[in-house]
Amino acid sequence: MKQTLRELEIATRGRGFYDFTAKVQSLLRETGLKTGLVTLHLQHTSASLLIQENADPEVQRDLERFFSRLAPDGDALFRHTAEGDDDMPAHVRTALTTVNLSIPFNEGEMTLGTWQGIYLWEHRQAPHRRSVTVHILGE
Amino acid sequence: MKQTLRELEIATRGRGFYDFTAKVQSLLRETGLKTGLVTLHLQHTSASLLIQENADPEVQRDLERFFSRLAPDGDALFRHTAEGDDDMPAHVRTALTTVNLSIPFNEGEMTLGTWQGIYLWEHRQAPHRRSVTVHILGE
Amino acid sequence: MKQTLRELEIATRGRGFYDFTAKVQSLLRETGLKTGLVTLHLQHTSASLLIQENADPEVQRDLERFFSRLAPDGDALFRHTAEGDDDMPAHVRTALTTVNLSIPFNEGEMTLGTWQGIYLWEHRQAPHRRSVTVHILGE
Repeated sequence: MKQTLRELEIATRGRGFYDFTAKVQSLLRETGLKTGLVTLHLQHTSASLLIQENADPEVQRDLERFFSRLAPDGDALFRHTAEGDDDMPAHVRTALTTVNLSIPFNEGEMTLGTWQGIYLWEHRQAPHRRSVTVHILGE
Repeated sequence: MKQTLRELEIATRGRGFYDFTAKVQSLLRETGLKTGLVTLHLQHTSASLLIQENADPEVQRDLERFFSRLAPDGDALFRHTAEGDDDMPAHVRTALTTVNLSIPFNEGEMTLGTWQGIYLWEHRQAPHRRSVTVHILGE
Repeated sequence: MKQTLRELEIATRGRGFYDFTAKVQSLLRETGLKTGLVTLHLQHTSASLLIQENADPEVQRDLERFFSRLAPDGDALFRHTAEGDDDMPAHVRTALTTVNLSIPFNEGEMTLGTWQGIYLWEHRQAPHRRSVTVHILGE
C-alpha cells in the first residue's frame, strides 16, 4: 500500500461551478496506482466540494437558483456582514454541502458514475484562489 | 494492510429510504478484516447516502416531508425539467446531503451508533437501480 | 502503513458548536505518523460534525440562526415528536450536514485551512455525551 499527498490550486472567477475531475484523474494517473481511495479536502469555509451532474449545465444554474433563494445575499438574518453581503450566505452554503470527498478507484480510474463530475462550488462573488488537498492511497 | 473493492446494486421502488447496513456489514465480514475503514460511494446525482435513525420509521417520513417542503416537485424556480418534475428536486436533495460515507470498523464491526443505519435515499419517484462502490481497507 | 482507532467523548451543554480540533490533533501527534488520513465518525443522528470558520464567533451564531429558521423547533410539519420539540429538527440538521469527515495530514499536521476548525454541532437543547470514532492511517 502506497500513498501520495498533493495540492491543487483552483482559481475561480467568482460564484459558480468549476469542474476539476480531470485534474484529480491526472494526479491519480501519475501515481500509477490501480486500486484504492482518493480523498479531497477543500481548505476553505466559503466554498464547497460537490459531486453533481456533468451533462446539462442548466442543472448547475438551477442549483445556484435554489441556494440563492434559500440563503440570499444580504439576508437581514445575518450579523456577520463585515466581509460582505455574500460572506455569511457562503458559509451557510458550505455547511449545507461539504468540503470533503472520498472516492474509491479501480483500474486506475475513479469509480464515478457516468454523469458525475467533481466540482469546486465557489460561493463568494469575487474571484478567489482555492486549495484542495488530494490524498491518494492504494496499490 | 489489505483492501477490497466491491459494488452493491440496490433496486429502489421509487422515492424513500432503503436500509442497506446489513449488506455492507456482510461484505465486511467476508473480508475477515478486523480494524480499518469502509468507504461508500454512490454513483448517482439524484439519490443520496445517509446515516440516520433506524428506530422510529416516522423519522424517515418526517425527513421526507421536510425535504418535500424545501424543494417541492414541480417548483417553478427550476428550468431543467425535461427529465420530469421530480428530477431537479432530486439533484437539490443530493447536493444538500451527500454521496460519500466513511465509517471506521473495529473487531470486524462498523463503529456505528446504536441508532444509526446506513440508507440509500432515493429521490426520484420512479424505481431505479443504484450502484454503490464499497471500498474496505484494513488488517 | 499503520493505523490507530480511538474514541473521543465530547460532553455538550446543549445546542451549539464545540471546537475539538486540538483533541484530534493531539491524538494524531500521539501516533507519531507523518503523512496520511484522519477519518472522524460521529455515532449519533441528532448532532453533526462540521468544518467551519474558527475566527469570528458570530459566524456560528448566524449558522445557528439560519438553521433555526429553516427547521424551527416545534414545526407543525413533524410527527415524530415524542422525544421533544427539538428532536426532529435535530435529525433534519444532521441530514443537512454530515456525521463523517476525512482530513489528510502532512508533517504530522492536518491539512486544515487557516480559518478551519473541526466542530461538533450539538442540535439538541439538553446536554449530551457524544462519541466520535477517530481512525488514523498513515506512515
